Amino acid sequence: MIARNPGLANLTAGYLFPEIARRRREYMAAHPDAKLISLGIGNTTEPLTPHIDAGLIDAAKRLATMEGYSGYGDEQGLTALREKIAAVFYGGKVAAEEVFVSDGAKCDIGRLQVLFGSKVEVAVQDPSYPVYVDGSVMVGAAGAYDDGKTSGRPGYAGIRYLPCTAENGYFPDLSDLPKNGLIYFCSPNNPTGAVATREQLAALVAAAKQAGSVIIFDAAYAEFIRDPSLPKSIFEIDRARECAIEVNSFSKPIGFTGVRLGWVIVPKELRYADGSAVIADWNRVCTTIFNGASNIAQYGGLASLEPEGLKEMRGLTDFYLENAKLIRATLEKLGISCIGGDNAPYIWARFPGRTSWDVFAQILDTCHVVTTPGSGFGPAGESFVRFSAFGHREDVVEACRRLERLG
Amino acid sequence: MIARNPGLANLTAGYLFPEIARRRREYMAAHPDAKLISLGIGNTTEPLTPHIDAGLIDAAKRLATMEGYSGYGDEQGLTALREKIAAVFYGGKVAAEEVFVSDGAKCDIGRLQVLFGSKVEVAVQDPSYPVYVDGSVMVGAAGAYDDGKTSGRPGYAGIRYLPCTAENGYFPDLSDLPKNGLIYFCSPNNPTGAVATREQLAALVAAAKQAGSVIIFDAAYAEFIRDPSLPKSIFEIDRARECAIEVNSFSKPIGFTGVRLGWVIVPKELRYADGSAVIADWNRVCTTIFNGASNIAQYGGLASLEPEGLKEMRGLTDFYLENAKLIRATLEKLGISCIGGDNAPYIWARFPGRTSWDVFAQILDTCHVVTTPGSGFGPAGESFVRFSAFGHREDVVEACRRLERLG
Repeated sequence: MIARNPGLANLTAGYLFPEIARRRREYMAAHPDAKLISLGIGNTTEPLTPHIDAGLIDAAKRLATMEGYSGYGDEQGLTALREKIAAVFYGGKVAAEEVFVSDGAKCDIGRLQVLFGSKVEVAVQDPSYPVYVDGSVMVGAAGAYDDGKTSGRPGYAGIRYLPCTAENGYFPDLSDLPKNGLIYFCSPNNPTGAVATREQLAALVAAAKQAGSVIIFDAAYAEFIRDPSLPKSIFEIDRARECAIEVNSFSKPIGFTGVRLGWVIVPKELRYADGSAVIADWNRVCTTIFNGASNIAQYGGLASLEPEGLKEMRGLTDFYLENAKLIRATLEKLGISCIGGDNAPYIWARFPGRTSWDVFAQILDTCHVVTTPGSGFGPAGESFVRFSAFGHREDVVEACRRLERLG
Repeated sequence: MIARNPGLANLTAGYLFPEIARRRREYMAAHPDAKLISLGIGNTTEPLTPHIDAGLIDAAKRLATMEGYSGYGDEQGLTALREKIAAVFYGGKVAAEEVFVSDGAKCDIGRLQVLFGSKVEVAVQDPSYPVYVDGSVMVGAAGAYDDGKTSGRPGYAGIRYLPCTAENGYFPDLSDLPKNGLIYFCSPNNPTGAVATREQLAALVAAAKQAGSVIIFDAAYAEFIRDPSLPKSIFEIDRARECAIEVNSFSKPIGFTGVRLGWVIVPKELRYADGSAVIADWNRVCTTIFNGASNIAQYGGLASLEPEGLKEMRGLTDFYLENAKLIRATLEKLGISCIGGDNAPYIWARFPGRTSWDVFAQILDTCHVVTTPGSGFGPAGESFVRFSAFGHREDVVEACRRLERLG
């Protein structure tokens, strides 16, 4: 029979979130009366807002009319949406043709891994969103897992882990970037909630240019930034157009986690060693193994970028940030050291001397609150857990009340 | 700088359909008064039907309510939809857990190429849907293009082309399948419109089993089959569960080309050489680089599988088949030899001694009708063009009137 793809065989465990769901189900089976509250996966909970929802409904209605029906659209997305994204989020710093609308950031990261293939060296912030590493392993850009028992350095062969710790202010040492490789960088960060400053991103761009490497900048949480001095896009930094791709998403700012809509920016200046343009290959990937985001979702996205929609987006992100403030205040009152939650919907809490899964199990058992174990995001996440601020207010308030049992 | 992925560098031309769109735009620029009719890309044209559209609208409305909102769903799709697909399309021959709902067949083929990786040998029907070959080249499962000028065998290195010609009744010789590889097989076929019989599929399954190879069975046009003796799924064939994956789509049967919804069946019996289950790796791929189809689209799909929705699906496919009949009758009256159009929405027309692009250009210029050049589907498609039956009735009637100029 056909051989198993070594890339898949190299993956040692399931994708993190289904694994948490499994442990949660296991706990529920043993404790059927427990009323669990999830501060685990970053899954939006609040209803879609009226103006944006009307955009979806109107689109669905139009599709049943002779004048309003459309079949395949451009794989790159509706021209109006590409123009609006360029104008609203980038103030003209990117062109509409550089915007590629998609069904979400996770899927785009998968396609970017197909774009760059198996020969590229990959660096990630450690901890980081698991898809950067898992997807790289899948396509063969990384190798077998080393549990670190002998080497002391757990991780996949070929992945350069850039520790982001309390000691370095959650911004990595840039002296050890891969040459002519890929650097995944997420700000506001998932899972730590840390946001890179303008100076830090300028240093990152300079270091990437120096190394000849491409930054895959994940800005999926940019709309949670409230400090006006913090950059929301890598393209606010000079010369980023020569060395960066940005991935972004409507999932968190307007609750489209289930509706599915995101985008990628590939600047025209970005070139391979042979001088050819990355944007041309990205267009080829998108037209060949992708067929556009749902047209209904795209019209919802378009509505979200109108003045009324932007107001709703701000209200929704404000709501989740208020949750974050409550959670962080609770943890700090308990003397638990943490960061994030001010310009990001995640709080990253440290439990020195303990394993993340141990803390996860304790909080599950003591408080009936589901968190995400930090070690699931990379070796440097060990002894942390991530609290997500996505939740109904009453659930977050109740979770905070229960978390006091940890004191 | 970063090196270009050799997989992308190996692709010699753009994806077929954007290329046709480019030539069409070029023609329009030179002939601004021409009123072109497209029988080119297989793009649905008729409005969504009422019951199915109501499913979409209701879903969009529910998302704005506290009780009805949902964020991320299971990457594999709504349980209710998986169950309904298993029951309605497979009559229990597959289990709901073997159904993976997606944003469409093209995207699924891309993910299947990630699943099997770069070390696998690939066979395709020749001609075939370009994504099988282009995607395989992208992930490195095929190599450089040979234009055939010296070798006489144009095509990508490593791809085994299985000619489907008038001479073999558009069903390939099975004596030369790859060992432990992949066989892409599409029935009803795109582009030829040929449908494999039960006996032919039984032979294919036997040959694939013998070769240790996996069939990727593309059944995206199954709902156009009217002859009850013809199989609509590979899983109607004994032992296919040990050697086949099926890809399918809501695009054509209910006009969801723009809404985006499809599915893949991976049977539990399908195993790699090492004995591990393919379904587990497919689940890992889907949970890692995919995040589920749009929930709105999924509720539309669910509505389409209710009795009223199934009636609408039948009405819509009947409509396009009536178009197909008109086109085929016109071509045959002109003495052009063709197949398809009876159990498929494509008509495959032969123009002996001429190149496909030449015929494409002639029909564009003489009739102002856009077709698809057969050579775009593979070397054996040379001298054919494909007519798509997707179009408004009045356009198809007018196109047929104009095609008479070819006589």
